Amino acid sequence: MATVKLWTDEEVATAPAVQAVFEDIRAVRKSDFVNNFWRALANQPVLLERTWTSVKQVMLQPGALDPLTKELVYIAVSTANACSYCVHSHTAAARAKGLSDDQYAEFLAVIGMAAETNTLANSLQIPVDPEFLAG
Amino acid sequence: MATVKLWTDEEVATAPAVQAVFEDIRAVRKSDFVNNFWRALANQPVLLERTWTSVKQVMLQPGALDPLTKELVYIAVSTANACSYCVHSHTAAARAKGLSDDQYAEFLAVIGMAAETNTLANSLQIPVDPEFLAG
Amino acid sequence: MATVKLWTDEEVATAPAVQAVFEDIRAVRKSDFVNNFWRALANQPVLLERTWTSVKQVMLQPGALDPLTKELVYIAVSTANACSYCVHSHTAAARAKGLSDDQYAEFLAVIGMAAETNTLANSLQIPVDPEFLAG
Amino acid sequence: MATVKLWTDEEVATAPAVQAVFEDIRAVRKSDFVNNFWRALANQPVLLERTWTSVKQVMLQPGALDPLTKELVYIAVSTANACSYCVHSHTAAARAKGLSDDQYAEFLAVIGMAAETNTLANSLQIPVDPEFLAG
Amino acid sequence: MATVKLWTDEEVATAPAVQAVFEDIRAVRKSDFVNNFWRALANQPVLLERTWTSVKQVMLQPGALDPLTKELVYIAVSTANACSYCVHSHTAAARAKGLSDDQYAEFLAVIGMAAETNTLANSLQIPVDPEFLAG
Amino acid sequence: MATVKLWTDEEVATAPAVQAVFEDIRAVRKSDFVNNFWRALANQPVLLERTWTSVKQVMLQPGALDPLTKELVYIAVSTANACSYCVHSHTAAARAKGLSDDQYAEFLAVIGMAAETNTLANSLQIPVDPEFLAG
Repeated sequence: MATVKLWTDEEVATAPAVQAVFEDIRAVRKSDFVNNFWRALANQPVLLERTWTSVKQVMLQPGALDPLTKELVYIAVSTANACSYCVHSHTAAARAKGLSDDQYAEFLAVIGMAAETNTLANSLQIPVDPEFLAG
Repeated sequence: MATVKLWTDEEVATAPAVQAVFEDIRAVRKSDFVNNFWRALANQPVLLERTWTSVKQVMLQPGALDPLTKELVYIAVSTANACSYCVHSHTAAARAKGLSDDQYAEFLAVIGMAAETNTLANSLQIPVDPEFLAG
Repeated sequence: MATVKLWTDEEVATAPAVQAVFEDIRAVRKSDFVNNFWRALANQPVLLERTWTSVKQVMLQPGALDPLTKELVYIAVSTANACSYCVHSHTAAARAKGLSDDQYAEFLAVIGMAAETNTLANSLQIPVDPEFLAG
Repeated sequence: MATVKLWTDEEVATAPAVQAVFEDIRAVRKSDFVNNFWRALANQPVLLERTWTSVKQVMLQPGALDPLTKELVYIAVSTANACSYCVHSHTAAARAKGLSDDQYAEFLAVIGMAAETNTLANSLQIPVDPEFLAG
Repeated sequence: MATVKLWTDEEVATAPAVQAVFEDIRAVRKSDFVNNFWRALANQPVLLERTWTSVKQVMLQPGALDPLTKELVYIAVSTANACSYCVHSHTAAARAKGLSDDQYAEFLAVIGMAAETNTLANSLQIPVDPEFLAG
Repeated sequence: MATVKLWTDEEVATAPAVQAVFEDIRAVRKSDFVNNFWRALANQPVLLERTWTSVKQVMLQPGALDPLTKELVYIAVSTANACSYCVHSHTAAARAKGLSDDQYAEFLAVIGMAAETNTLANSLQIPVDPEFLAG
């Protein structure tokens, strides 16, 4: 269904630049499973390497936000962009990081409410209050 | 600039249904400031009351997600929907709830990365891995 | 603020292809006012002519939907696409066609509700019921 | 395919809060069929109840707009948000409320035209005419 | 899966207005294959004829941009609008017009980068530099 | 108007990590002008450095697509995402790279047409033809 070939492990083994990224994905994630997103990007080794490096930096390094919060923010953006693949993969990731049913229910309520009030504000073309502008 | 009149406090005082909501906003938020979003919705008292009730339930009641996480998820959706008003008002709210510069920087990195990978997945039309589907 | 020059009536008078469209706009609308959308498109006479012809056919000819319904559908799309210009111009057009305050309030409730449930369905990735598929 | 379980009637029968909403859906709609949207929301009983209450108020109560107009506005938003589920379910609802082939053809022409002119206005960054601003 | 019937060649043969458009599509494209987009629009002959005429003018006539550039711009918009059908059909068209793997990889990098920086600029609400405004 | 402070050159001079990126921007672009996008990102030095590195690689290195084509693709995405800042800055960049009035007119026609047909395909939920799927 993709617009490009999804690389099998056998095909990856024939391309050292791709193979190196796949090995790093497996090592960092401590799992043999490599999902289709990377198998599609394998057709573009430079983009594959750059994207994986960014994902490692942004999503996997310890930082100022906890990992579950980052996944929820990620799913929120992916939902608004109607990215079916991303919603599926990052909802699975959020569950693996401990998302509870109560947290998920509250998350859904927040994104629904946000979309509703976004629509009202954009349709009413409400001007920004001076109080909200940065000094 | 709005497509409707923004109600002043004097105008609010003439409409009991609107006045009741404005008083509740001030009581719940412990602040006299009522922002333009509510002054625009004042033209539609039923919608005003329903929206405020939902916001109270979803955003202001203690729940399974902490208040700052909910604000970040809200900003993420508002950014993807290009709602200038909502981005301004909820970034101000997040700061009031303690958003640090480091957290904001990491949040921005996550939403940028999410938008980038959403675009790649949507353009490559990558099929969802069976591993991501709910049992 | 536009990325192109907005043509004044004096400039329009120097370009017969543009002038012909502006005259038709004024004749069809029975008004001397030509809004900025057309003054921006004047830089691309072929696009100007094609767009005006389509607008006349789709929005201004009597058809199976009444003119106010078409304006509401137009505003709904423009809101979702965050087109500030279009929301402003077509909300003004809807009012000129008789949009009442009650209708506007109900319209806002519908688009807010639609955005909320769109977000829930896209985040939950709900499969389409067979009952909804066309024969 | 959903990110959550879709509840069967047997499962619904074990959860009184969910069961109460499902019974109300069936009573209000005068039909035994409950579509997947509600079966997915059943995992979050509070969100389920709140969403159904809103849908009843906004979409099903007699108001200032006729039911078919509200469905068309709903489909317009759902299309712009690329919500496949919502487009399917509300196009079916619109047909059930009497949408004719001619009305559907005209609706499609309007949303296509709106998307086209939204894109032109957003790309040209056309400033709003003072004539369109609310008093 | 469509919300309307997809017309077979036999059904097309019974409707002269539809048949005329299908014959022109085959003649212009020098191919017997007519894709589902046109088979769905066949339910609305006026919209079918108007859309095909526009596509011919915009996409198929020699102009100031080469055909492959136009396809890439088209895919970029379709990706941002999450139009699965359009991404598939126009990626196929781009390949038929000579899109190389290197060009595709670079295109993907550009749309990913654009989406990322769009998100940053929209979330930071960065004001436009006066240097970027048209004279 | 931004949600963050826009850094002046004096402030940049006090932060070596930011200063290094600003110097590289000036050197690569052979211009003293640094636009607001970078002055806003200066608040997040890691994000600033990573974003500039990506922009250099993706947009400024010679590659398989010519620089003007990349700018047009960029504007197309930015328009669909309603990023006013990005549309302004990259339309200026495209003009600096030689965008002619005829090319701009044709570009506008393509993105308008794409948005229109995206909307039709998404509303009709047209299934992808097997002919368009990658081998």
